[in-house]
Order: sequence, then C-alpha cells, then structure tokens
Amino acid sequence: MKSVWRNSRNWRRLGGVVNRGETIEQSPASKASALGSSRTIKDGGSWVPWTESKALSRALSLLDARSVVPLSDRGHVSSSLQHRRGYGSAPGDSQVCRDKRFAELKDADIVHFRQILGDKGVTVDSDDLEWANTDWMHKYHGHSQLLLRPQTTQQVSEILQYCHAGRLAVTPQGGNTGLVGGSVPVFDEVILNLGGMNKILSFDEASGTLVCEAGCILESLDNYLKSRGHIMPLDLGAKGSCQIGGNVSTNAGGLRLLRYGSLHGNVLGLEVVLADGTILDLLGTLRKDNTGYDLKQIFIGAEGTLGVVTKVSILTPPKLASVNVAFLACEDYVSCQKTFTEAKQQLGEILSAFEFLDRHSLELVLKHHDGTRDPLPDSKESFYLVVETTGSNESHDKEKLEEFLQSAMEKELIKDGAVAQDITQADSFWKVREGIAEATIKAGAVYKYDLSLPLKDLYNLVEDMRERLSDSATVIGYGHMGDGNLHLNIIAPKYDDKLVAQIEPYVYEQTAAVKGSVSAEHGLGFMKPKAIYYSKPPAAVQVMKGFKDLMDPHGILNPYKVLPSLRESSAISQGL
Amino acid sequence: MKSVWRNSRNWRRLGGVVNRGETIEQSPASKASALGSSRTIKDGGSWVPWTESKALSRALSLLDARSVVPLSDRGHVSSSLQHRRGYGSAPGDSQVCRDKRFAELKDADIVHFRQILGDKGVTVDSDDLEWANTDWMHKYHGHSQLLLRPQTTQQVSEILQYCHAGRLAVTPQGGNTGLVGGSVPVFDEVILNLGGMNKILSFDEASGTLVCEAGCILESLDNYLKSRGHIMPLDLGAKGSCQIGGNVSTNAGGLRLLRYGSLHGNVLGLEVVLADGTILDLLGTLRKDNTGYDLKQIFIGAEGTLGVVTKVSILTPPKLASVNVAFLACEDYVSCQKTFTEAKQQLGEILSAFEFLDRHSLELVLKHHDGTRDPLPDSKESFYLVVETTGSNESHDKEKLEEFLQSAMEKELIKDGAVAQDITQADSFWKVREGIAEATIKAGAVYKYDLSLPLKDLYNLVEDMRERLSDSATVIGYGHMGDGNLHLNIIAPKYDDKLVAQIEPYVYEQTAAVKGSVSAEHGLGFMKPKAIYYSKPPAAVQVMKGFKDLMDPHGILNPYKVLPSLRESSAISQGL
Repeated sequence: MKSVWRNSRNWRRLGGVVNRGETIEQSPASKASALGSSRTIKDGGSWVPWTESKALSRALSLLDARSVVPLSDRGHVSSSLQHRRGYGSAPGDSQVCRDKRFAELKDADIVHFRQILGDKGVTVDSDDLEWANTDWMHKYHGHSQLLLRPQTTQQVSEILQYCHAGRLAVTPQGGNTGLVGGSVPVFDEVILNLGGMNKILSFDEASGTLVCEAGCILESLDNYLKSRGHIMPLDLGAKGSCQIGGNVSTNAGGLRLLRYGSLHGNVLGLEVVLADGTILDLLGTLRKDNTGYDLKQIFIGAEGTLGVVTKVSILTPPKLASVNVAFLACEDYVSCQKTFTEAKQQLGEILSAFEFLDRHSLELVLKHHDGTRDPLPDSKESFYLVVETTGSNESHDKEKLEEFLQSAMEKELIKDGAVAQDITQADSFWKVREGIAEATIKAGAVYKYDLSLPLKDLYNLVEDMRERLSDSATVIGYGHMGDGNLHLNIIAPKYDDKLVAQIEPYVYEQTAAVKGSVSAEHGLGFMKPKAIYYSKPPAAVQVMKGFKDLMDPHGILNPYKVLPSLRESSAISQGL
Repeated sequence: MKSVWRNSRNWRRLGGVVNRGETIEQSPASKASALGSSRTIKDGGSWVPWTESKALSRALSLLDARSVVPLSDRGHVSSSLQHRRGYGSAPGDSQVCRDKRFAELKDADIVHFRQILGDKGVTVDSDDLEWANTDWMHKYHGHSQLLLRPQTTQQVSEILQYCHAGRLAVTPQGGNTGLVGGSVPVFDEVILNLGGMNKILSFDEASGTLVCEAGCILESLDNYLKSRGHIMPLDLGAKGSCQIGGNVSTNAGGLRLLRYGSLHGNVLGLEVVLADGTILDLLGTLRKDNTGYDLKQIFIGAEGTLGVVTKVSILTPPKLASVNVAFLACEDYVSCQKTFTEAKQQLGEILSAFEFLDRHSLELVLKHHDGTRDPLPDSKESFYLVVETTGSNESHDKEKLEEFLQSAMEKELIKDGAVAQDITQADSFWKVREGIAEATIKAGAVYKYDLSLPLKDLYNLVEDMRERLSDSATVIGYGHMGDGNLHLNIIAPKYDDKLVAQIEPYVYEQTAAVKGSVSAEHGLGFMKPKAIYYSKPPAAVQVMKGFKDLMDPHGILNPYKVLPSLRESSAISQGL
C-alpha cells in the first residue's frame, strides 16, 4: 500500500473493483474477550479492576437453581444493588433506584419458565449470566439471576404474559453490542435473549424483501443475501455479533445510511410481542401500506421498552457489481466539507459512504489496533476521508471517481490520497476507519459521545473539547460525515469523575445550542435518559411517557432505560 | 412522436436528456373545475346530477354569520345530515352517525375564532365553504358551516385548544386532493385549512434539508428546490394543488418512491399541534436522531386524526443532470415483470420510475384526456411501461439505458418502444401515464381501488375483476409497478349499488388472500375505515385506537375517518 499521488495533479489511479461485503469483521464478542485483564471497568458506581469485578460479579451471581441452594433461600436482592448510577454522568446526578413495583424472582417462576422453554432455554448458571449481564465494553454490569432464550414467538408471548401478570421486569437482549447499556439489566431484571430465534423465513428476489427472526446476526443475513444478489441496507462494525432485532430496536445507523437511508424507510414489517404477551403481527412485506397508523415505526428505536421485536421484514437493495474505496487526506475540516459537496456533485448516485477521521484518530488506531497500516504514510495531514462508491457499471464508476478526484485535487480540497486496488487494500482502508472504536478501548478509559451536528459545526466541538481538557485527556473525532454524525471520544488514563464534570453537561449543552442530537445512532439506553431534554422538548417526552404507559402499563419492559423517571423529568426539564 | 423500434433488434435511440421536473401539471382543482356540469355526483347516499347537488348544497349551506340571520336562529344540524354512509361500500353496511359528543357551532364560537384569526381567516360564506366541503372528485360532500384559515402555529394551537375544550369536531385540510374523502368534513365539522401557512422557512444546500410550513404546495417546493440544485423526494399527479402537510399526513407515495423511498425515511422532523392545542416541536433537521421514540413517525399517514401537522423538515435529494424516459410495449404481464427485473439489474442505481398501464388504460386516456398522443401508434400490445432513469452523467446513463433496452429486446421481453428525445416527448409520455386518473373521471362513474399486491399477483386481480363484471363495467389496471402498487379502476355508465356489491368486499378479500394492502398510498379516509381489517389484525387496530384515545381523548380530530367505530370494529372483526 502506498500513496498514489502527492501534491500533484498527475495522480495515478490504482483503481480496482472491490467488494467490501466480503470482509469478515472481528465480532465485538471476540474483540471483548481479547481485551485482557488489565483494563478497569466501572461497577456499581466505583471503578475496580476488571479481574476484581469479575470475581465480585461471580460472588454476587446466584447459583444455578438446579444446584443445592434454592433461590428462595438466597434472600432478597442485595441492598447494595438497590441503587445504580448511569455512567458518564456528572457527579451529583441522582442515582437510579430499583423500582419497588417489580417482584423478585422466585423458584416457582423458574419452574414456570422451564415449562415454557424446557431446560435448555432457561439459564441460571452464573458464568452464562455474566456474559449476558455485561455489555461488550464491560462498562455496564447488571445482576440478573435468569436468562431466558425462547425459540418461538409463542414462547416470547407466554414469557411476557407471565412477567406482566407477575410484575417481573424484563430486559430484552439481542447481540448485546450496544454502547449505552441498553441491552443489559440494571438490577435483577430477567434477561430475554432473542439469539435462539435466528431463522430466515423467506426471501423474495424479485422485490428484495427478506423476512427473518429477530435473532439473526446481521452479517449472516448479509452473507445469505450476497449469494442471492442483494445486501442488507445497513452495515456496522458490530455486524458479526449484532442481531437484526436489536438493530431495529435501536434504529441502528452505520455505514450505508448515507446511501440507503434509515431503518424507518427500509423496515417493511415487524412482529412484536407487547408487554402483556399480545402478539402484534405487523409483518407485512409490502413497499406501500397506508391502512391506519404505521405502528411498526414506534418500535424502531424504542430500545425494547415498548415491545419485543420477534420478526423483521426488510427491503434489501441489490448487490451492485462495482465498489471502489478511496482514502484521502485533507489539510483542514473546511476542506473535508467542500470535498463532501464535491463528492455529492461528481459521484451523485454512486456515492455510498463518506466517512471522516482526524489525525488523532488515525494515530490512535495505528498504535492500538493490530494489523492496521497507514494508507498514506508520507502524508501528515490533519484529516482523512474514506469515500466509497457502489454502482452497477465498473467503467462508469471508475470514470466518475476519477473525475471527482481530479476535480477535488484541482480545487486543492484534498492533499493526498489512494484508491484501493483490490479487496485487500479496500479492507485495509476500512479497517483504519472501523478499527477506531476498538482502539479507543485499548488506549485507556474512554468516554464516547455519539452526536448529530450540523455539518459546519461538526468539528468545532472536538476542537473546543480538546482545548477545554488540555493535557488531561486525548480527544479524537471521527464518524459518518455524510450523515452529520460525529463520534467524539475522550480517552483518559483512568475513569475520573472530575474529568466527567468537565465534559458533561458541557458536551450536551454545546450540542443542544446548535440543535444537534445527543444520540445520533447509539440510542439513550441506561447512559443517557436524562440527556433526552437536550434534544427533545418536555411536551415530546410527555407524549413518549404516554406511549410507554399505554403499551407497558406496569413498566416491565427494559426499565430504567430511554425515558427519564418522572422525578428526574421534573427536575431536569425545569432546569433546562 | 413515433415508434423507434419494432420487432427489430436494430432499434434507433432518439435519446435526449429531459427534465421532467419542468413539466407543469394541471392542478386537480383546475381539473375539477373543467369537468363541466354533466357529471353526476353522489350526495348524501343517493346519486344526483352535479348541478342539482350544487343547488342542494347551496340550499343547505348556512348563510354568512355576518349576514341577517344569526347562526343561533338556524336551528340544529338538519336531521337528514345525522347519517352518512361511506361511498363505495356494499349495500347493507352500517351507516355512519354524527357523534353526539360533539357540540354544534354557535355564534359565540365564530366570534372567538374571529378574535384569533381576524375576519379574513374565518369563512362562513356558503360558496367558499362548498369548495372546502367537497373533495376534488366531487364524490364526498360535507356540511361544515365554518372554514378557518390560520396563518401561524400559535393560531392553530389556540383553535384546537378551544375546540378541544368545547368539543367542536375539526377536519384538518390541505390541498383537498385526496381520493378517499379524508380531507372533507362528514357532517358539520369545522374545517381547518392549512393553505395560509405556506412559507418556506429554511433550506440548507449542503445537507439538502428543507424546512417549510404545512400549507406549501408540493410543486412550489419542487420549483423552489430546482433552482437550488435539489428536488422533492416525492412527486405525484396532484402536485399543483396538494400541500406538503397533507402529503405527510397521508404518507403520499407517488412516482419517486421507487428511487427515494417513503416519507417515513425522508421526513426529518415535524411540528404538530395536538388535539388539545399542545405544540409538539419535533422539527429537527438532522439525518440521525435516536433520542427517545421517533414520535413524528406516528403522524406520517395518520390522516390528521392524531394531530395537525403545521411544519415539515424534509431531506431533499440532489437534482441530477440527466433524465431519460422510455415508453415500452409488452405482450403480456409476465413480460412486464421480467422487464422490471431486467431494469433493476441493468439500470441499477439510475432507475427512478417503473410504471405500467394496460391497453385499456391507454385507450381510455387517449380518448378522454385532451392532448395525449399514443407514443407507439403502430403497436397494439396489451401492456405498456414508462421507465425513467435519473443520474449524474448523461453519457453513462444513455449507455446503461441502451444496454437495458438491447437486452430486453434480445430476450423478447419488450415488443416495441420509444425513448424520449426531448422534454416535450418525455412530458408526452408522462402525460399518458399521469392522465389516466383524470380520464377515468371523464369516462363515467368510477370506482377506484388503490392496492398493494405481490408483484406476481398484481395483474391477476384486474383480469379476475374484468371476468367477474363482464360487460357491466370497464376494468382498467395501471400503477406504480416498481412499488407493487396497482390502481384498479372500474368505470361504469353510472354509480350503481348492485355493481358495488359485485366489487366489494370481493376486491378486498382477494387482496387480503395474497397479503396485500387495501390502501397502498391513498389512505383510509372516510371511504375505507371498515376495510382496515383486511390488511391489519384486530390487535393492531386496538393499539391504533389506544393511540387515538391517548392523543385525542375527545375524538375531535377528523372524526369518522381511518379507524372503524367500536361498533363496526366488533361486528367486522368477528365476521372476518
């Protein structure tokens, strides 16, 4: 790999058609297991080394119900687990208390669930529970005593009917790859893992409509489709582990949104089980259906708090023959913006990704992510872009890309760049961009902010934060520039509440000041319910609460997530 | 205009880049006024000549409140207006009764509205009310005594707050171009016409985000954008009259959906006034925002029954330089399907429309729509396609189109065809397709069904219906083939309940049998609430009712529309 042009108008195109879809990404699960034992994680409000935390977790985990000590003898939920706090919040924020409306798990409950699911579908083993209790960043750690793995919608319905009647709180869980603690329990909620529902139900090549169960892994679906001339309309770093039900429930964005739009446009139908066990069959496969309110929309991005998605019908775009990837260097952020405008004009309908990273991000990923190489080793610019085109005609696409690059160089928008010659090079370019998330975790204690901002303001916040924090942390900025989505990452030697106080609520205030979103694609989960008022007015949150109460009157579905509690609502909305 | 190839592999491309966006369509309003006085319309359940109906309507319309007779002296709502029936329903269906919860309009109400809006915003003039009481097909006729035209969101809020408190029913109205009676009152509802709120508020060229008031005419927005290098993501025949607020409220589909997707993907934000006057500011301009439930989605397609859309933020695609239109002839429906598959493969990312019409539709439009010409006069095939490409590079697009046509001919999928040479020819092709709706109305008494069907089943229903009705009616089929959307039109010499009984519920049953939708893009309005169960399960309708009760507890917003009444629900869902 080498730079193909430098400060020259006579750049040499290495060209080549690549198929990024063939890349096999390391899954977050395997990434997590490779993190070693030296990292620290935050548990119950104080930061402890990972090894200690693991021991603590094991000690706290209740034994298998089939073993000697019956669940009923183990006493009530530990009083130390009655309070939890959202991570990444400023000191002094109110703690979250366990909702006393919820019942505690009894032996009889487990017996009942075994009747529904059989022994295999019911896990009380502490090791298995540890995986399901902890998110892949090992940042959030729940204390569930029970993991249920249904195989059918009917089983999900029976489980929820029982939990609804008995006031047992439930955490729906997919691939557990979220970044805001949405898919792990906070206290002792029953974990309802959809991974066992992983069948593809139908695929219609003529229309491109795929119908599958919620537990299907995104990458498996993409592989299935590729051999049938289609692709999934979304792609993200966690594709090797994340499940389509989770993608829908979190309204996952990712790398293809620029081209194919959001799941609100691509999901054609859903099957959802409501809190009381009602099966809502909205699993249509039609492109157009204006018969009544489009109910499925409200479950897209509701993070499992309004119902449990069990099946998904989704429109998949055709797999086009020609994919090109360019890695470009820009002198400043303004040049990145102008290059984006140029790309939209010159590449038009074939532009499929426009990602950016700053030099700090590049250096970080090269240092901490094995197997990454600098695509432009002789270039020391401040910003880098990954630009992808996807089209049906190789020669047309190459011509468009050439014209775009020529034009961008003539206008001095880009200083250096390389076009991938083959799949290996394209994968190598993408690895630099996609590897940043993992590299930040290896680099230290990381605070991740996922913000939507007007394009012109997008990088100001990174510079602002860098100045604000000075030497106390490394501040990097990267993300989906084409969608106005910044991933602001702040990496410190260790987690530190004083540092948090310098970041929050400042970062949210600055985002709100330019009418941005405090969560572009990650959702609110357990981390950010209280931040909702920075992006949504109190009247809207009130309506959301109305929806929640209507759909889940006992509040059993994924409690403590997404919406702030009433007490917090009142205090925070008055303060804003 | 002439055919460019015929049973020959050596077809000659006339080619040429056209810009269909520059076509100025005749507006439905002007179309309606041009229909003359000889047509019959259905009024109050019985069909009367349009001229008589007009007289009847005028007689029934109450006088201007500023004139001699005060409203309070005019007595209660005529007892003959207490019952209305949905048109196009089979005989014996239950009638709709005026909801007794609603108050009747009083002089004091009008005084209050004049205080909010001034004299200009309050209309009680019978002539003005007649336009607003009647849909553009002159099929549905309400009896409202009051038309309100707010200029600001605050005024809408004050109006609804008053109506909510006083139990005055309200019909929100945009351009009044709907086909299911959704935008006209059924009884004496107050008409809230948004046409006065027609300001463009902002446009950001970098992101393509347009923010405007709900009353902006779709075509005006498209014209505004064109000069700024963008287009609206939707286009429909009624663009000269329909308003963006109405488009959003009905989740309008149209000609560009195949390429740019539905409004659920393109609408970035909404401002909505709820039934009680609460202003819900969801007017974000961000491509990504996962902070809580995506509430705006529930108003898209709710037909004004959950809130009144007052402002819209929408993502607009770039206006691409090259547009080509081809008019093709196919021997049978299977060939149309195969041509669509071929088009998707060969045209890939530049395919922007794939419309079809049968020979019956073509003959009808040529006979009844002035200024239409047969693009392929020497061809007498059974099916015709309008295929449009939109791309950024003229020579690339032409090459792709040429390859597609060559391939389709070699495979004998298409028998004949012409490619538009210039804008005039392209407009001429489009006029044939877009003129059908108007031609059907001129041709006689027309029953319109807007169905989503699996592509393979799409035309079966047309042939089935043609056989079923034999000589009693002309049955034509056309529509958005690329979206699986059939417009089945049945044209008879006069409206006839016996004919309706042959059509309904058969047409809905057949649609339900193949899991289609009984309303693809037109909505349910006043015509089809009872048909909802053919496309949605009772549990879903129950949740919809929950949403309605939550958002509009007194049911004042667009009553009698979209959802079946509880009595009907029970009877119909049990019968299905």
